[in-house]
Amino acid sequence: MLKTKTIKPAASGGLLDRRSFLLSGIALSSAYSLKALSASKAGEGRIDTDMPVWAKTPGHNDVEYGLPSEHEKHIKRIQAKNTPETSTFSMWHTPIENQRGIITPNGLHFSVNHNGIPEIDPQQHTLRIHGLVGRPLKFDMESLLRYPMVSAIHFLECAGNTAPNAVSLTALDQDCQELYGQISGAEWSGIPLKYLLKEAGIKPEAKWVIVEGADGGSHARSIPLEKLMDDAIVALYQNGERLRPSQGYPMRLLLPGWEGNTNVKWLTRLEVTDTPAYTKDESGLYSDILDSGEIQRFSFTMDVKSVITHPSGKQTLPDKKGFYEISGLAWSGHGKIKHVEVSADEGKTWAKAHLEGLVLSKSLTRFTIPWRWDGSATTLLSRATDEHGRVQPTRDQWRKKYASYSFNHYNGIQAWHINSDGRVENRYV
Amino acid sequence: MLKTKTIKPAASGGLLDRRSFLLSGIALSSAYSLKALSASKAGEGRIDTDMPVWAKTPGHNDVEYGLPSEHEKHIKRIQAKNTPETSTFSMWHTPIENQRGIITPNGLHFSVNHNGIPEIDPQQHTLRIHGLVGRPLKFDMESLLRYPMVSAIHFLECAGNTAPNAVSLTALDQDCQELYGQISGAEWSGIPLKYLLKEAGIKPEAKWVIVEGADGGSHARSIPLEKLMDDAIVALYQNGERLRPSQGYPMRLLLPGWEGNTNVKWLTRLEVTDTPAYTKDESGLYSDILDSGEIQRFSFTMDVKSVITHPSGKQTLPDKKGFYEISGLAWSGHGKIKHVEVSADEGKTWAKAHLEGLVLSKSLTRFTIPWRWDGSATTLLSRATDEHGRVQPTRDQWRKKYASYSFNHYNGIQAWHINSDGRVENRYV
Repeated sequence: MLKTKTIKPAASGGLLDRRSFLLSGIALSSAYSLKALSASKAGEGRIDTDMPVWAKTPGHNDVEYGLPSEHEKHIKRIQAKNTPETSTFSMWHTPIENQRGIITPNGLHFSVNHNGIPEIDPQQHTLRIHGLVGRPLKFDMESLLRYPMVSAIHFLECAGNTAPNAVSLTALDQDCQELYGQISGAEWSGIPLKYLLKEAGIKPEAKWVIVEGADGGSHARSIPLEKLMDDAIVALYQNGERLRPSQGYPMRLLLPGWEGNTNVKWLTRLEVTDTPAYTKDESGLYSDILDSGEIQRFSFTMDVKSVITHPSGKQTLPDKKGFYEISGLAWSGHGKIKHVEVSADEGKTWAKAHLEGLVLSKSLTRFTIPWRWDGSATTLLSRATDEHGRVQPTRDQWRKKYASYSFNHYNGIQAWHINSDGRVENRYV
Repeated sequence: MLKTKTIKPAASGGLLDRRSFLLSGIALSSAYSLKALSASKAGEGRIDTDMPVWAKTPGHNDVEYGLPSEHEKHIKRIQAKNTPETSTFSMWHTPIENQRGIITPNGLHFSVNHNGIPEIDPQQHTLRIHGLVGRPLKFDMESLLRYPMVSAIHFLECAGNTAPNAVSLTALDQDCQELYGQISGAEWSGIPLKYLLKEAGIKPEAKWVIVEGADGGSHARSIPLEKLMDDAIVALYQNGERLRPSQGYPMRLLLPGWEGNTNVKWLTRLEVTDTPAYTKDESGLYSDILDSGEIQRFSFTMDVKSVITHPSGKQTLPDKKGFYEISGLAWSGHGKIKHVEVSADEGKTWAKAHLEGLVLSKSLTRFTIPWRWDGSATTLLSRATDEHGRVQPTRDQWRKKYASYSFNHYNGIQAWHINSDGRVENRYV
């Protein structure tokens, strides 16, 4: 009993007007294959003659620190295949296509570790500020925990997220976790770094700060002082509890909107200087090679980007045709997402998606749009625009700017091809 | 070197004007016992001659599902002492005084379980809607996962949270977790229940819905249809991952702002009726006895409430006197928090605290205010007001309304007494 006449289209390819879709109510039923109860006898719905065992027996007690259900054990981080087993460098991807909302649970937050994860005793850990300051300072955990704290929800993304789409000449048959697993969202709480820098007394000639972690190998980056005096946080908490070891316990730098590796974990030293240090990771891995051959260093901000997470790579649509909610994530290191457009006909027509829930600066933003799939092969695209008018480029546009082997800061439009059997595949358009 | 002259007071007892406190910068240093480095030699700050072992050795690899640091193992839920060991009824309290921000991590979210925690196979679990509907419906997980979803950050609070302060004639020497541990905050994602009810077709005479869980004992509550057609969600996700078993896996009802037990976990049945069912839990445990002897049923909404979490019960201020940031949580089941006032002189003078970060409807809201403790015994209070002008009552005002043995919906002003040795104690004022 499809009452689809009242549902207005939003673009071709089956994209629907959200308001008329939600108001249609009864139309969802048949489409979603619901099983009608035979309710001919009074009270039949009330008494379930086939009660499952857990509704007839007492349950177990809770525990001191809870974990997900045994039935969800397949939802886990995966280690990127291109990480050599003998190295301490590792990349763990979050299953972003299994997330809803804008918060990633701490156990599933992505992590990239240059020198392995150190096990730090917080009682022995210190944070030093020195260099071009009036008074060099050293903080222990106890003193830091007394400072004023702020909290904010922000995304973190590795500069190399979605690298396969940047460098592979053919679209690899990978899923959302493999391609987009180096992005997560969390509520971070800690001390605005400007309070600590002001206290040390920055000298007028200071322009940069060399930020160093306490991991073996001392991952370090040079950061412009201006960013550190703006929205930088010495993060001590993530989603309401102290940082996990792989997120920098007992403290990390948080630079909202900037590439992951500048958010130095296991933060231990801030040296105020007048020039960058050209550390290993800013001269090597995290510099971008342009098409002109020029090398671009200090390209800190993660640009506007989006991906449809439902449906996405390697998933199969359960019905051959019918109604679905397309849902995805958009973000920009420059500020808020202004809008996300979705195409269900490979880019010929576009419809504005609904921004669902909180739309916050430098945060994951959820978008949704209803879609009626007619069962024929098609391609879904999403294109985000931020509040500064920055728009995601196509893959070709992005690749014209960079060298063919450059992979950091890829933010091209993602295409998911829907085969007529319902299988979803990564696709270049 | 205290430059405190520029810091303006906000009220007596040492409460400070936030803006002038944050701008004072250098004044924090001495007060926070920072250790100045001897920086007489150039570069001395750069090379740490006493490098810890973790900065000189490679770290370990990450894991599929992360956990907190070994050093944070003491941050855990505790089972309330008044739960009989032989019962399947259990109450687990969140360590709210160790949380920052407004999100509680899933592993530490409070849980109250009337019949133990069932281990439900999501493949066998169904949700039924029947009674006064045009078409009885039965949903399995697969069909539900295709519905449009929304996400929102909300608090959940047990009706009996802070019961000891309601019924104990003397203020018990308990900490924040013991007294306030039945409140948590999370981002919930799921399907607006109104979509499912509309699809079933509500009959005009319908007014109530009996909501039932699949736990052994079938916890059930009667909920006004109006609330279910408003902001009720069939929650499938919590902080970005599927619900934990103790939070209702694979699905629970979420009724923003309403007492915890109405947010029925392991949701399996919705019977649409014209009258409430007067189930065990709405005739017994979760009815309120008024001072007049009258029994108040269906008192669903959690009222405006607040608590200072830093400093709070059983903590000890590390310095005999000095600067501290007072930080706490406020919430109202009726809407947004409008403001929170703090007193550092047992209620004689009050100052408005800063609302830090997101101020969302029916959500935990963080408040902060700087405080200079002069080292003498004093009492800290917080008093929240919501957007509807509802103000927290004093303990005496609350108790005048209810019978002496009534303990649900207690929202009296919390007083923390600071002893001259820095120890913080629960106190009635």
